[in-house]
Amino acid sequence: MLNKVLTALLGLTSGLLVATVFFADIGKQDDGASTLQSVAEKVYVPQGQKDEYYLLSSGGHSGQLFVYGVPSMRKIRTVPVFSVDAATGYGFDKHSKEMLGGYTWGDFHHPAVSETAGDYDGEFLFANDVANNRIAAVDLTYFHTADILKLPNMGGPHAGVFVTQNTEYIALPTRFARPVSDEYAALDRYDEAYKGIVSMVQFDREERKFNLAYQIVLPPWSYDLSDAGKKVSGDWIVMTTYNTEFATSNQEINASQKDRDYLVLINWRKLADQVATGDVPEVDGVKMVDPRDVEGSIFAVPTPKSPHGVDVTPDGTRFIAAGKLAPLMTVFSFQKAFNAIEQGKFAGEEFGIPVIAYEDVLEREVDPPGALGPLHTQFDDRGNAFNTMFISSEVVKWNIDTGQVLDRKPVFYSPGHATSSEGDTVAPDGKYLIAGNKIAKDSFLSVGPSHPESADLFDISGDTMQHLVSVPVDPEPHYSQMIKADKIKTEVVYAKDENRPNSVWASKDARVERKGNEVHVYGIAMRSKYIFDAEAERPDALTVKQGDRVVFHLTNIDLDQDITHGFGIMDYDLNMEVQPGQTNTLEFVADKSGVFPIYCTNFCSALHQEMSGYLLVEPQ
Amino acid sequence: MLNKVLTALLGLTSGLLVATVFFADIGKQDDGASTLQSVAEKVYVPQGQKDEYYLLSSGGHSGQLFVYGVPSMRKIRTVPVFSVDAATGYGFDKHSKEMLGGYTWGDFHHPAVSETAGDYDGEFLFANDVANNRIAAVDLTYFHTADILKLPNMGGPHAGVFVTQNTEYIALPTRFARPVSDEYAALDRYDEAYKGIVSMVQFDREERKFNLAYQIVLPPWSYDLSDAGKKVSGDWIVMTTYNTEFATSNQEINASQKDRDYLVLINWRKLADQVATGDVPEVDGVKMVDPRDVEGSIFAVPTPKSPHGVDVTPDGTRFIAAGKLAPLMTVFSFQKAFNAIEQGKFAGEEFGIPVIAYEDVLEREVDPPGALGPLHTQFDDRGNAFNTMFISSEVVKWNIDTGQVLDRKPVFYSPGHATSSEGDTVAPDGKYLIAGNKIAKDSFLSVGPSHPESADLFDISGDTMQHLVSVPVDPEPHYSQMIKADKIKTEVVYAKDENRPNSVWASKDARVERKGNEVHVYGIAMRSKYIFDAEAERPDALTVKQGDRVVFHLTNIDLDQDITHGFGIMDYDLNMEVQPGQTNTLEFVADKSGVFPIYCTNFCSALHQEMSGYLLVEPQ
Repeated sequence: MLNKVLTALLGLTSGLLVATVFFADIGKQDDGASTLQSVAEKVYVPQGQKDEYYLLSSGGHSGQLFVYGVPSMRKIRTVPVFSVDAATGYGFDKHSKEMLGGYTWGDFHHPAVSETAGDYDGEFLFANDVANNRIAAVDLTYFHTADILKLPNMGGPHAGVFVTQNTEYIALPTRFARPVSDEYAALDRYDEAYKGIVSMVQFDREERKFNLAYQIVLPPWSYDLSDAGKKVSGDWIVMTTYNTEFATSNQEINASQKDRDYLVLINWRKLADQVATGDVPEVDGVKMVDPRDVEGSIFAVPTPKSPHGVDVTPDGTRFIAAGKLAPLMTVFSFQKAFNAIEQGKFAGEEFGIPVIAYEDVLEREVDPPGALGPLHTQFDDRGNAFNTMFISSEVVKWNIDTGQVLDRKPVFYSPGHATSSEGDTVAPDGKYLIAGNKIAKDSFLSVGPSHPESADLFDISGDTMQHLVSVPVDPEPHYSQMIKADKIKTEVVYAKDENRPNSVWASKDARVERKGNEVHVYGIAMRSKYIFDAEAERPDALTVKQGDRVVFHLTNIDLDQDITHGFGIMDYDLNMEVQPGQTNTLEFVADKSGVFPIYCTNFCSALHQEMSGYLLVEPQ
Repeated sequence: MLNKVLTALLGLTSGLLVATVFFADIGKQDDGASTLQSVAEKVYVPQGQKDEYYLLSSGGHSGQLFVYGVPSMRKIRTVPVFSVDAATGYGFDKHSKEMLGGYTWGDFHHPAVSETAGDYDGEFLFANDVANNRIAAVDLTYFHTADILKLPNMGGPHAGVFVTQNTEYIALPTRFARPVSDEYAALDRYDEAYKGIVSMVQFDREERKFNLAYQIVLPPWSYDLSDAGKKVSGDWIVMTTYNTEFATSNQEINASQKDRDYLVLINWRKLADQVATGDVPEVDGVKMVDPRDVEGSIFAVPTPKSPHGVDVTPDGTRFIAAGKLAPLMTVFSFQKAFNAIEQGKFAGEEFGIPVIAYEDVLEREVDPPGALGPLHTQFDDRGNAFNTMFISSEVVKWNIDTGQVLDRKPVFYSPGHATSSEGDTVAPDGKYLIAGNKIAKDSFLSVGPSHPESADLFDISGDTMQHLVSVPVDPEPHYSQMIKADKIKTEVVYAKDENRPNSVWASKDARVERKGNEVHVYGIAMRSKYIFDAEAERPDALTVKQGDRVVFHLTNIDLDQDITHGFGIMDYDLNMEVQPGQTNTLEFVADKSGVFPIYCTNFCSALHQEMSGYLLVEPQ
């Protein structure tokens, strides 16, 4: 049966064909109660009111975080994380440029909000960069990226990020096996020289800094997604694998041979304890623990064919795998797994890892007829699970305890992840579900060959799901977090801090200091002018010599909400923003002689157009 | 009176205070007919239906074009124009990287759709980069940037782009005066050495290429906005000026001294004829014409204080200036100007330019009580004009022939430009108006100090305007174009072209060619694999030597809508996309040794996750 599905998949010119068969009525509102009127009103948020939830969505290969409001599905903001962003000068100013570490883009898949006692606490959001092996923290007080850490030895932390229930650790399992330490090894040496690595990262909220606590070395399988346990399973993380075939080419065929791959269960607390003993080798300065050396810390459970998501139920008792190339969701019991471990009842081992028999952990298989390509499971507050089906383009609602399928609704089209409101917490609230779709086809006005992605919003508060709206979204939605609006407490102005390095708060203190061929400006941006040098005939003009290194420190002394100033230097490809109360620094070498207008790039006032100055670079 | 307004402006900590005074009831729907229900339905576009209009909006300092659907106001797409864009690999692949010319960002203010007989023809959209002096053409068949031209001698083409009625020329007047030829000249030499320049650009639709036809040299005033004439005024362009004070510092004060600045009328046909004679000097290879040498080609008209917009009425008979620092709109008559010119009736001259007396061109002043900060004028199909008021945060509707104010509605908040449906054409259709706002304050869920910008959509088909919805928008909306959906004809797949250079259409033809230290891959991207070398043991692995120059030419042979493939190379900060039927090239030096996974970054199929390969770089 499983191979039949795979064969069907490989033979299709598009998985969408399958969807068409199952949903001939696609595009119609099939819920009798969903009149246009009521649906339109449900997503309309009038001026003066606000959305109920933040949707914090991965931007995929844009590298950025997208913030939407729910239920209006209006995009509120792009928060730059892994990629340069001209709109905010991210990657241009000195601080963000250094934080990006020389990279100009990233591939951000799975956001996770920091948790306390298994609940979103709304303080930070963590993000993974699959492309360039980084993790970032976004400070949700200011909605800016606070820290980025480059992870060594990884082949793309696709299976992250997921936080433990008190954010003790952020787990990032690798997707592609690679040799560690940036070593070269031909693919013929794959089995022995290539490794699968999990990075276990800690985040210090006070210092706003990451620390790579330790790495776990694993077989060169591909790790696709993971989740952290909750409550009874709080010491565990669980991960899906594919390519347990060790294919090194044409994975489409070669990594899809086995009917079952593995779920891997890891006890992070045991490993952390082992690391704490100091009896763990270091690889390039990173503590690297082999869980096979730490008894009781790792187990494998067979699971149907190339699973994508694995998700722990809100009560922490079960984990549910979605079998991408198998048409079913599989419910596993943590308690059954613990029993087998306690009894030492294993079906064998793989790569030195004890394997628990499928049947010994299985609670049930759920196999809705015709539902193909389950990818990811979400939850409500009444014991129900929701699965996105990539191939049959639908969401399936079913009861975890009984496996009974309760409802199915089409989405438009080909959903990846789903996100329910407060969905990753111990207490999902069962209000909304959003399908993050990979394909939009002809749903929206055509913008040529590069289509938008899309999302579908459902009201899941009733017995059946109600489709509310389809919207185009920026590329590319993978996972997201939907959090109650009142859980995020923002600051809209940076507090005035006279001790902040390089800041200037009074016009008279604006000054230029020259040290050899370095020119340091300690200046002010305010409505509606720049002051670089209070003493100069023209306080908003700076004259330097060609070849000088110029450092502009600018403080925005307008301590008013929404009064951000820009700072663009013409023909120098330079721009940064200075938010209200912020000090920001732009550093460059004035290698071109001539006259270069400087102007405010971020509309700030009625006299914004007049907020300008000149950089004059005398020829050598 | 005018100085009172200015004083008020300068003294305010925020212009918003004024708005609060005039609209104590702001935030309320003040139109009795606008029940929530009817408004919500008007902007709701159900799945299976499409929006009526494209809104093609400038992205300001993001450098990009944003495409929204109207009336849903859903953002459909970012089209990268002047800035790198990780999401599409724009600025990473060889072609777009070269087209960007070394720049990574731009400041895109005013889009213009190509016109035929004064009507949007929907073929191309032109964009200006104020920051780095460029013009771009976006091909609306594919929604990609077709050409970018760097403009010499300019100080930011803010006052562009506006097209003549058959797109004969695209006019780009400069904002900041600068010395020409990248010369250095101190600000003390401003009056004599600094110039205001207008670039007159032609675009060849077949070749999809710009040509800088000629430049016009003008006084070192700042040119803010412009418009092209229509019908009777079709040979003319009209531009606003500010800083006719020649201020070189603190423009907030020093460029706001005079009660009147100028509108400049230029006869582009006369200048083009002069250029055609060949009797025009060249500066750095550009034909530069001084209109004072061409009789009847330039005139100045005084206009109230630091005007922002000037807009020609759909019938081409009048031009309307919005006096930013004067609380009124001024209607001028082309016929009156032509009469004065014919009669040689001038009030004097400025900088050698004949000045026509204000009263000799004036038709009427429109001064709605309490309306402050008019910026820009738009039109409907019934002889009415609409002005955005930056300071009093409202839109004012008035009759052009009578000056009678017909309606006023609040916006949220501080609008810059307005855009009406088909608004720049000879036949606006009077259906919708959108205010592009600079400030959102607390309209939406807070995202910290860096607020979104916003837009307000109005239904203008009735006697009074109906506010439909406020939405957050990506930064920063300046001008936009609203065009009927059926006017844009897209292609969603690139036609298969076996003669296209570097393309490969059959798996067996995929190959690697090595020439010294250059490695050229002629490969294929398809669901769900890469084929670099059909003959290799691993067709999706490429082994090179450290230091090799690697050139990947990839053709996406999936000729199906919405099946774009990505191509990311881990840790190399490289990614590009290949749209259906497209061939794209990524070129880099493999300067780091090791093993680097390659993977599809753009979700493409059920086996997308398996679409991967390896770049192996042998150490030197």
